[in-house]
Amino acid sequence: MNKPEMTDAGLSVSTTVVGVDETGATRELQLVGERALTIYVDKQEIVTLMTIGSHPEILTLGYLKNQGFFESLDEISVVQVDWQTESVAVVTQTESSDFTEQMSRRTVTTGCGQGTVFGRLMDKLQNIHLPQNTILQSTLYALLDSVKAHNEVYKKAGAVHGCALYTGDELEIFVEDVGRHNAVDAIAGYMWLNDISGDNKVFYTTGRLTSEMVIKVAQMGISTLLSRSGATQMGLDMAKMSGVTLISRSRGKHFMVLNGAENIEFDAQEV
Amino acid sequence: MNKPEMTDAGLSVSTTVVGVDETGATRELQLVGERALTIYVDKQEIVTLMTIGSHPEILTLGYLKNQGFFESLDEISVVQVDWQTESVAVVTQTESSDFTEQMSRRTVTTGCGQGTVFGRLMDKLQNIHLPQNTILQSTLYALLDSVKAHNEVYKKAGAVHGCALYTGDELEIFVEDVGRHNAVDAIAGYMWLNDISGDNKVFYTTGRLTSEMVIKVAQMGISTLLSRSGATQMGLDMAKMSGVTLISRSRGKHFMVLNGAENIEFDAQEV
Repeated sequence: MNKPEMTDAGLSVSTTVVGVDETGATRELQLVGERALTIYVDKQEIVTLMTIGSHPEILTLGYLKNQGFFESLDEISVVQVDWQTESVAVVTQTESSDFTEQMSRRTVTTGCGQGTVFGRLMDKLQNIHLPQNTILQSTLYALLDSVKAHNEVYKKAGAVHGCALYTGDELEIFVEDVGRHNAVDAIAGYMWLNDISGDNKVFYTTGRLTSEMVIKVAQMGISTLLSRSGATQMGLDMAKMSGVTLISRSRGKHFMVLNGAENIEFDAQEV
Repeated sequence: MNKPEMTDAGLSVSTTVVGVDETGATRELQLVGERALTIYVDKQEIVTLMTIGSHPEILTLGYLKNQGFFESLDEISVVQVDWQTESVAVVTQTESSDFTEQMSRRTVTTGCGQGTVFGRLMDKLQNIHLPQNTILQSTLYALLDSVKAHNEVYKKAGAVHGCALYTGDELEIFVEDVGRHNAVDAIAGYMWLNDISGDNKVFYTTGRLTSEMVIKVAQMGISTLLSRSGATQMGLDMAKMSGVTLISRSRGKHFMVLNGAENIEFDAQEV
């Protein structure tokens, strides 16, 4: 498999501003940046994403893959980010891809990409039945400790969601962005770029376990999904359908398993 | 001004499921529902929103207004929600509106409605200069107390964002939904339907103060925006541009003013 030629244009993500607290005192604090990034494929404008800009290349790849624009990385020869023009130019092998049909179909079904994605992903979900992997409670705890150490931007500046990919309690990649979707898409792009399968991986997110989150993770072939937040009913339904072990409200020593409790080995019980 | 004929099809928003906690014990908990709602205007499909479904009619109105489909409520004669088909039928006075052009323009600029909105809203923001209203610290504290009492779904089931509209510390409406955008849009719809101006209103959100959040609130004519969460740099830039008093990290007795600190009267200082 060929990797595309890529820039490495990740931005540092926070700036210092001065605020006034409840005592009337001025205090320095850090805010995350939020940048527009317009994706062009063979000079066709595809979408403008709002992102903190830390991982623009894998975000672009993951977005295009999750939206169904490409199946194989071999189709893409260049991913070139230019912050001056707030754009990323993706060049395909043919240099003349044509997505007019996809773009117009999308319009008919929905005004918001998310909705469209949802429709297409649901179809794909029908065919996904993930292998069931056992996970130790002690591994979950070690993973949660590790996440705490990596949640950098959130700690400094707030206003972001974090997603992380783990093998057991070993971190593969941690991505924070202003939107959950971007952070998930960037991790999908990373897995795609590095040909990493979802087998025996654990996906962690600070965000809520909605249908779309569960569907995307199932589509990545990952069977264990862990969140600091709660789930929606439809998120749970999707987890049951595809076989995702769904663990909500994971913080410190607490968690709540909503699906696949039989895959958890409770080896860290306090006596 | 005529109000459209509307259904009142708000759904109760949570269901009880059984989870397994970290001790291995089963526990009942509540999850929010998440429903697809497809908006049709004069039989043209516009968008599918994922929503908890508590305020489908004002969500529909606010979405259509914020996306620039309509200027006046008089153009709309019926808003009819049908959960069986997961759809809402909007009928205009002419019964033959044609949004083909809007829908295709949208496709060119972006695959995700959010991006498109952003572009159009930024243009509008250039002309917005909000009146500066003084707000008492004691009013902020009373408002935060009130929010706590109303944050119902969040407390029961998590996995939602809440937005509220206040006059001083008096609650006008509180809306929770799976996405921030829906909650904001529903409040925009409520204000539009009831001909409420943004003068002297305060907008509260549990969500982050991103550019889009600030732009939408400025567009509603509301000059004070309060959040439990942090802000992004671009959110702050938008607040400065339009004159929104931007208050982040508001919980209990704490807050951090990022723009318009001169509009806060610190009348509740502890001695």
